[in-house]
Amino acid sequence: MNIRPLGDRVVIKKIEAEETTKSGIVLPEAAKEKPQEAEVVAVGLGGIVDGKEVRIEVKVGDRVLFSKYGGNEVKIDGVEYTILRQDDILAVIEK
Amino acid sequence: MNIRPLGDRVVIKKIEAEETTKSGIVLPEAAKEKPQEAEVVAVGLGGIVDGKEVRIEVKVGDRVLFSKYGGNEVKIDGVEYTILRQDDILAVIEK
Amino acid sequence: MNIRPLGDRVVIKKIEAEETTKSGIVLPEAAKEKPQEAEVVAVGLGGIVDGKEVRIEVKVGDRVLFSKYGGNEVKIDGVEYTILRQDDILAVIEK
Amino acid sequence: MNIRPLGDRVVIKKIEAEETTKSGIVLPEAAKEKPQEAEVVAVGLGGIVDGKEVRIEVKVGDRVLFSKYGGNEVKIDGVEYTILRQDDILAVIEK
Amino acid sequence: MNIRPLGDRVVIKKIEAEETTKSGIVLPEAAKEKPQEAEVVAVGLGGIVDGKEVRIEVKVGDRVLFSKYGGNEVKIDGVEYTILRQDDILAVIEK
Amino acid sequence: MNIRPLGDRVVIKKIEAEETTKSGIVLPEAAKEKPQEAEVVAVGLGGIVDGKEVRIEVKVGDRVLFSKYGGNEVKIDGVEYTILRQDDILAVIEK
Amino acid sequence: MNIRPLGDRVVIKKIEAEETTKSGIVLPEAAKEKPQEAEVVAVGLGGIVDGKEVRIEVKVGDRVLFSKYGGNEVKIDGVEYTILRQDDILAVIEK
Repeated sequence: MNIRPLGDRVVIKKIEAEETTKSGIVLPEAAKEKPQEAEVVAVGLGGIVDGKEVRIEVKVGDRVLFSKYGGNEVKIDGVEYTILRQDDILAVIEK
Repeated sequence: MNIRPLGDRVVIKKIEAEETTKSGIVLPEAAKEKPQEAEVVAVGLGGIVDGKEVRIEVKVGDRVLFSKYGGNEVKIDGVEYTILRQDDILAVIEK
Repeated sequence: MNIRPLGDRVVIKKIEAEETTKSGIVLPEAAKEKPQEAEVVAVGLGGIVDGKEVRIEVKVGDRVLFSKYGGNEVKIDGVEYTILRQDDILAVIEK
Repeated sequence: MNIRPLGDRVVIKKIEAEETTKSGIVLPEAAKEKPQEAEVVAVGLGGIVDGKEVRIEVKVGDRVLFSKYGGNEVKIDGVEYTILRQDDILAVIEK
Repeated sequence: MNIRPLGDRVVIKKIEAEETTKSGIVLPEAAKEKPQEAEVVAVGLGGIVDGKEVRIEVKVGDRVLFSKYGGNEVKIDGVEYTILRQDDILAVIEK
Repeated sequence: MNIRPLGDRVVIKKIEAEETTKSGIVLPEAAKEKPQEAEVVAVGLGGIVDGKEVRIEVKVGDRVLFSKYGGNEVKIDGVEYTILRQDDILAVIEK
Repeated sequence: MNIRPLGDRVVIKKIEAEETTKSGIVLPEAAKEKPQEAEVVAVGLGGIVDGKEVRIEVKVGDRVLFSKYGGNEVKIDGVEYTILRQDDILAVIEK
């Protein structure tokens, strides 16, 4: 990955429904069109961001559940990613 | 439970109306369709979240009353959970 | 009372119009349908709540006037209570 | 007065138009229906309120001009009072 | 002047168009109906106001330009004044 | 200039299109009616303004680009000026 | 470049679609009309901006992805630039 997100931002790659089923996570009906599970591929430095201290709690490789209303989508080398603030990540799915 | 909520977030499992009656808590008419009682199944680390200090006051196993307008719903291994900020939890029902 | 409100929240029990008259407090016409006087039945710990220091100024047994637009209503063992933030309490009626 | 307002709140008693004229204060036309002059009858403790330091600048007996859009009205022993935040008081009329 | 404004508030007396012309200040067409020049007649103590430090930069007698959308108007002994926050004052016209 | 802006405010004099062309700055079509280039003619003291520290980064004589949606316009001795907060200044054009 | 952006602002020059393809970054359909990739040409000093500490994380020459809803466009010596706050920059594309 050649992208370094700024501040409290995180780059994630959405995990499609098939993979989601394998990990045992199934999303409720209303959310099916837009999956909420993803893998972290890059994290910002955190620290002082806009005058507030932000502690980064996720790391590259983490599986996360994220709020589908946050973030910007970009395509890099043909793969779609989402850049969002860490606060839009709800939880880490521990293995 | 294999989910670790971030920051000041808490994962809860709603308690259905039948169980609610047993513990002596009955919700008023207007709120009946969407129960507000739940059990805490996972809690975030708290600490500095978005530049503000958050102290976690609930623990796994606590019975709580929560504001029905907060939180995101997810289904894990066939069970529905709600991930919400601790501030959306109104009170702990002490046993 | 088996409910412990979180942070700066307080649990109150509304006092009906008849009792209100006895204590000498009468509410103006516009507010008559929804009495604003209540008794405190449980208080949160205060301290650091959402990054701000909150000092609890009310105690169990206090008679209070509260803003009728704040709070959530719950019924416990057949009795209705309101859970609200201390900031929605306007004043303590001293005896 | 048997009411102790919380935090940065103040209890005031409005002064009717007749008295207002005596003190030499006359309000402009647009504000005539709702007088803005009052006497302070009780003050909160100030200090740390909702995480911010508030210094109380008014005292019982002060004549004040207040913003007519703030505050809650209550009737105690047949007398109407207004409970408002000190910040809704514009100025003290010094004698 | 027998009015002491609270906190970061200032009492000003508007200067009519004729006087304005004398001091060399002329306001653009759109603002003509509501003059923006005034003289300071009383200032609050500043200090800690609503948890934030406010430093008073104007003094009684200063000629100021103020934002016409801020402030409350009152009439004292037949004279109209405006009570506004210091932040609604744009600049001091130095003599 | 006989105007001293308060706090983080700055007084600027807009530079007309002809002069703008000379300095090599040309604004895009959409902004042509309302030029965004100006010269600083007076600056506030900065310091603590409304509880936040503000550091003044511009000085009298600086050429600046400013956001056309901020500020108040005044005419002094027949010349039009704009009083705006420093934060509405986007950049200094260095010579 | 003869422009020094104030505070936490950054001046960027958008990179057209052709160049974007070369670097391997392709934006999704919805964003095609308004490219989001750019090169940093000037950065502000950061430090205390509007009372909050801002740490500048980008430098002149960086390739960045930025939020297309932030910033002001200006044309200097015939070239179009965008002045935006660093927080509107999502990520740096590392070479």
